[in-house]
Amino acid sequence: MQVKLNDQFWQPKVQQTVHETIPYQWKALNDEIEGAEPSHAIENFRITAGEKTGTFYGMVFQDSDVAKWIEAAAYSLRQFPNPQLEEAIDAVIDLMGRAQQPDGYLNTYYSVAEPEQRWKDFTFGHELYCAGHLIEAAVAYYESTRKRDFLDIMCRYADYIDRIMGPDSDKMHVYCGHEEIELALVKLYRTTNEQRYLNLSQYFVEERGKQPSFLKEEPGFGGPAKDRWFDLDYHQAHAPVREQETAEGHSVRAVYLYASMADLAIAYGDTTLIEALRKLWEHITSKRMYITGGIGSQGHAERFTIDYDLPNDTAYTETCASIGLVMLAFRMLQIEQDSRYGDVMERALYNGVLSGMSLDGTHYFYVNPLEVHPAVAHYRYDMKHVKTERVPWFGCACCPPNIARLLTSLDKYFFTQNGAEIAMHLYASNESTFDVEGRQITLRTETHYPWDGKIQVVLQTDEPTESTLSFRIPSWCRHPHITVNGELLELDAIVKRGYAQISKRWMNNDEIKLYFPMVVERIESNPKVHENAGKIALQYGPLVYCLEEVDNGSDLTDISLPVDSEFIAEYREDVLDGIVVLSGGGQRSDLSWKDELYRPVKREKMSVPISAVPYAFWGNRKPGEMAVWIREK
Amino acid sequence: MQVKLNDQFWQPKVQQTVHETIPYQWKALNDEIEGAEPSHAIENFRITAGEKTGTFYGMVFQDSDVAKWIEAAAYSLRQFPNPQLEEAIDAVIDLMGRAQQPDGYLNTYYSVAEPEQRWKDFTFGHELYCAGHLIEAAVAYYESTRKRDFLDIMCRYADYIDRIMGPDSDKMHVYCGHEEIELALVKLYRTTNEQRYLNLSQYFVEERGKQPSFLKEEPGFGGPAKDRWFDLDYHQAHAPVREQETAEGHSVRAVYLYASMADLAIAYGDTTLIEALRKLWEHITSKRMYITGGIGSQGHAERFTIDYDLPNDTAYTETCASIGLVMLAFRMLQIEQDSRYGDVMERALYNGVLSGMSLDGTHYFYVNPLEVHPAVAHYRYDMKHVKTERVPWFGCACCPPNIARLLTSLDKYFFTQNGAEIAMHLYASNESTFDVEGRQITLRTETHYPWDGKIQVVLQTDEPTESTLSFRIPSWCRHPHITVNGELLELDAIVKRGYAQISKRWMNNDEIKLYFPMVVERIESNPKVHENAGKIALQYGPLVYCLEEVDNGSDLTDISLPVDSEFIAEYREDVLDGIVVLSGGGQRSDLSWKDELYRPVKREKMSVPISAVPYAFWGNRKPGEMAVWIREK
Repeated sequence: MQVKLNDQFWQPKVQQTVHETIPYQWKALNDEIEGAEPSHAIENFRITAGEKTGTFYGMVFQDSDVAKWIEAAAYSLRQFPNPQLEEAIDAVIDLMGRAQQPDGYLNTYYSVAEPEQRWKDFTFGHELYCAGHLIEAAVAYYESTRKRDFLDIMCRYADYIDRIMGPDSDKMHVYCGHEEIELALVKLYRTTNEQRYLNLSQYFVEERGKQPSFLKEEPGFGGPAKDRWFDLDYHQAHAPVREQETAEGHSVRAVYLYASMADLAIAYGDTTLIEALRKLWEHITSKRMYITGGIGSQGHAERFTIDYDLPNDTAYTETCASIGLVMLAFRMLQIEQDSRYGDVMERALYNGVLSGMSLDGTHYFYVNPLEVHPAVAHYRYDMKHVKTERVPWFGCACCPPNIARLLTSLDKYFFTQNGAEIAMHLYASNESTFDVEGRQITLRTETHYPWDGKIQVVLQTDEPTESTLSFRIPSWCRHPHITVNGELLELDAIVKRGYAQISKRWMNNDEIKLYFPMVVERIESNPKVHENAGKIALQYGPLVYCLEEVDNGSDLTDISLPVDSEFIAEYREDVLDGIVVLSGGGQRSDLSWKDELYRPVKREKMSVPISAVPYAFWGNRKPGEMAVWIREK
Repeated sequence: MQVKLNDQFWQPKVQQTVHETIPYQWKALNDEIEGAEPSHAIENFRITAGEKTGTFYGMVFQDSDVAKWIEAAAYSLRQFPNPQLEEAIDAVIDLMGRAQQPDGYLNTYYSVAEPEQRWKDFTFGHELYCAGHLIEAAVAYYESTRKRDFLDIMCRYADYIDRIMGPDSDKMHVYCGHEEIELALVKLYRTTNEQRYLNLSQYFVEERGKQPSFLKEEPGFGGPAKDRWFDLDYHQAHAPVREQETAEGHSVRAVYLYASMADLAIAYGDTTLIEALRKLWEHITSKRMYITGGIGSQGHAERFTIDYDLPNDTAYTETCASIGLVMLAFRMLQIEQDSRYGDVMERALYNGVLSGMSLDGTHYFYVNPLEVHPAVAHYRYDMKHVKTERVPWFGCACCPPNIARLLTSLDKYFFTQNGAEIAMHLYASNESTFDVEGRQITLRTETHYPWDGKIQVVLQTDEPTESTLSFRIPSWCRHPHITVNGELLELDAIVKRGYAQISKRWMNNDEIKLYFPMVVERIESNPKVHENAGKIALQYGPLVYCLEEVDNGSDLTDISLPVDSEFIAEYREDVLDGIVVLSGGGQRSDLSWKDELYRPVKREKMSVPISAVPYAFWGNRKPGEMAVWIREK
C-alpha cells in the first residue's frame, strides 16, 4: 500500500511540518530558539558520549524528544527527500552510537546524572519509555532509508533489555511506569522478524498489574505528590490488563498501553485482549471523552477522573493523549472494521490533536481546554496548567514532536487492507496504490473535505479486479449517499458496522462518489455531564466549532443561542488561511446591567450576530476567550 | 441597651449553642470527642505552665480556639448563668495565668515548641493573632462577669506588646500577618479606657502595607507554597490601607482588617478611613461576593481571586470569612446607617454563616460551596478542600468556635443607637430596652421572620419620649409597608438610605407594624459572573434556597426551570425542624438518553416537581448533591 496525500487541508500541514516544524524543532533540540524553554536534548547525548563536559539538563525522558523528532523526520523523507536533513539525522545517530554503553544501554539521564540509579525506578525513570521512542525512530528511519545503523543500535539495546528483563527467574520482573516500549517492540519485531522482541512486548503487557505490584516498592512510587492520584492506577498497574474494564490513570499512558494490547492481539490472534479492548474503548468514548476527542480531564497527574466528569475550563486533555487515541483507534480498525473507531479517530484528529499546533506550525498547546477565560486562567491556582496562548516549546516537550510524527505519517491512517478488501477511514485528496492479489489498484481521491462532504474516488487498474472497497459513513452524517459510475447504491444493503462495503469486479476508471452532506449541527451532552447542561456544541462535518472573543466579544458565557436560530456555513478564504465560518444569531444580556452583582431576574436580552470557527483553529488571532459549549435558550 | 432574643429562629440556635455546642466544644478542646480530629488546645496550656510533660500539638494558632470558646461562653453567661461553666472557665484562666511568662507573653506554641522563635515570624506565627483572640475573650468575660483576672492577664500581655512594638525607634516596627489584634485592642481600650491600647491598634493598621514590607524578610513569607498567591496582598500588606481600593488576599484576614479600620475610624473620627472602607465595601459586595454572603472563592491561600470569578463547586467561602463580613457590616452600620450594610449582614448571617453549622449544632463546614456533586468532589484534586458533609471538628478549627461566639453575641447585631435614634437592622422576636436621654424605652418585637415578613413592635415607656426609630427595609422586599398605631406611613417621605425613620413622641403601647411581604424571587447574576450564566437562584425573604438530591434526585444540573413556572412557599413543620419549603415545576431530560455521550440535540424534556430548601440547611439529611444556581429554560 502506498498512500500519497495531496489535499488542501492536511497536505499543507504536512508540508509545513516538513519545511517549518521539523527544522524548527531541530533548532529547539539544539537550544537555538530564542525565548523558548531550553531543551539541551542533543547536548545531553554529547555529554554522554564524553565529547562535551557539563551536566545533564531536562526531563528524565529528554531523549524521547530527539527520538520523536527523528521519527517525524524519517517519515517525512519518504515523500520529501532531504539529504541535508538525512545528514543531520545520521550525525545524531552516530552520536547515539558513541553514547551507547558497551552493554547496549542508551539513556543520557541515567548515564550522566545518576549512573548508579540505572533500572532502579520503573515508576518515573522512563528508561524503557525512552528506549521505546528510540526504537520507533530507528524503525521509521530504517523503513524510510534502509540504513541499518540506528536499527542496529536499537537492536543491541533491545537485546540487552531482553537479556535482563522477562519471565525467566534470573531476570528482572518489571515493566515501565510509562507505557511505550510495548508498542515499539512490536514494530521492531515487524521490521526485524525477531520473535524475541514480540515476546518481550507481550511479557511487559502481561506482567503489568500483577499484584502485589513491584511498582509500589520503587523509590518514585506516588510521584512527587505521593497522593492517591499517583497510585497504581495512574500507571494502569492496578489490575492485570484483561481485568481492566475502565480507563484509569494517566491518559497518555493508558492509550499507549491499549494500543500495544491491540498490536499484540493482532500479532498473537488473542481474542481475550480484543474483548478487553472493546470494553475499554466503550468506556473511554461513552464516559470519559470530550467532544473534541480530548481525554484525561485532570491536570494533577494528567489523568482520567470519574465518569462524566468533563470540566471545560480546567480540562487537561493533553495533545499527546488525543494522539494516543488516534493510534489506538487505528489499531482497533485493523482488528475490526467498525466506524465507531474511525469516527473517534477522525474526531480526535480534526479537533483535539490539531488544536495542539498553531496555524504556522511553530507554537503548541500541551493542554487543550474547551473553554478559556484568559484573566481567570491566568489567575486561578486550579488553572495553572492552562495556557491561553500557544507557546514555542515546553520544558516537558512531549507534544510538539508527537504532533510532528503523527502528521508526517498521517498517510498511514487513511486505509487498511485485508486481502482484497480495502477500507478508507479518513477523507482527503490522495493517490494511493494497493496490491490486490498481485494486481495493482490505484485510487485517486478528490475532495475539499472537511469543508465539503463530496468525495470522488476514481479507480485505476490495468485489468478488472475483484475487490471490496469500504468507505466509512461518518457518524455526523445524517443522509449519506453513494454512487458508483453514477448509479445510486442502496446503502441499507451494503453498510455494515458503519462502512459501505462495495464488492465488485472493478474496471479501470470506475468512479465512486460519496456524498456526505455537511450541515451545521447542534450537539448535546449526556445529562450526566454536569458541565454541559443546557448547552450545545456546534459541529460541521468532523469539526467541532467554538466561539472566540475576537469574533464575539468578551464574556462569551453570556451568549445564548435561541433554539430556532439558523446557522449558515460559509467558506471564507480571508479567515484563518481559509476555513468554513458558521454565522448565526444569538442573544446577550442587554445594557441594563449596572454595577449590581445580583438582581431580581429581568431576562432582558438583545440579539447579537454570532460567529464560530473550528476549535482546532482557535487562538491563532488575538488572544482572548474561547468556548465550545454554548448555552441554548 | 439590653437586647434579649426570644424568637423561634435564632433563639433555639443560641440555646443550642449554649446547651450543646459550648459543652461539646469544651470536650473537643479537651480531646474528649471520639472520631473528631484532636485539639490538644487545653493540654498545650498545661504543658506551657509546666504542669504536664509532653509536646505542643496542633496549629500554631491553637490557643485561639480556646480564646474563641471562652468568648462564646462568656457571652452566653449574660442570659444563661451557669456556675459550672464559669468554674471551668475560671480554671482555664488560672491555668493561663500560670502559663503566662514573667514578661507577660502568653502563647503555648512558641513557649513550648519554639521558644527561640518568639516574634521571629510575623507572616504565619500568629502570635499577635492569638493575643487578639485572648484579649477579645478576656474583655467578653469581664463584661459578663466583672471578674478581672483574665482581663488583667491580657492587659499584662498587651502592655508587654506595647513595650516592644510601635512607632518608637527602639521598638519593633511590625504587624501581624493575620489581622485580629487590631480589633481586640480597640475592645480592650473601650473596656479599660487605656488610650495606649487604641494607639497600638492604630499603629498596627497604619504600619500595614508600608513599602518595602518587613514581611518579605520574615522566614515564613510566601507560605508553604512560596507562590504568588501568598505574596504581600495575601496579608493585605501590598499597600498602605488607605490606598487599598480592592479586597485582596486571604478573605478572613481582609475583613478582620477592614473591621478594625472601621473601629479606628469611629474611635478617631477618621473620615479618610471611612472613605477607604466605602470603596472596599463596594468592591467586595459588587464584584467578589457570592449570593450567600460567602467571600474568598479560592481554596489555595483561602483567598479572593479576581472580579466576578465566583465558581460554585470549587468555592472556598470559609465560614469565618462570612462571619468577618457580618462583623464588618455591623461596624459600617455604626458609622453610617445605610441598608447596603444591613442587607449584606443579613445575607451573610442567614446563608453563608448559618450553613457552617449542622442543625444539631455539632457538625461544621469550614468550606461552603454553592454546588456539590459528592462523587466529583470526592475525586477531584481541585476540590480537595470541599467536604460534602459537615464534620465534628477540624484540625484547623477556627470556624466552629467562631460561629459559637457569633451566635451567643448575636443580640449585639440587632440594634444601633445614636442618642435618641434607635435603628433596628435585623428582625427576630426580642425584648429590648434602651436608655433615651435618661428615659427607658422597651421595644417588644414579635415576628416569625424569616418565614414570614410581618413584624410587630410594641413600645413601652413610662412617659412619652421623643425618639427616632429606624427600621431597615430589606433590599429583597419589593412592596414594604409600615403602620404606626394602624396608620399607614408614606414611606417615600421617611425612608433614607434604606431605613424607614419614624420620628415621633412615642407613647406607651404605641404599635409599629412592618409588612415585608415575602415572595419567591428568582435572582440572576451579573453577566460577568461566568458560572451563573443562564441560571437563577431562588430567594425567599433573606434566605437563599438550594436544590438537594434528597428532594430532587441526582444530576441536579439536569434540572431547568421554565421561566413561567410558579413556586409556592409553604411552612413545613416536618422538614428540617420546620422551614419554608419552595415547591414548583421544573424539567429534566427525558429517558431517551442511552449510553451515548453526545448526540444531535433533541431537547426532549419531561416535567418534574422541584423542591427547594434554604441553603443554610442543606446537608442535614441524606448526603448528596446540592445546587444554588439553577438553569432557566
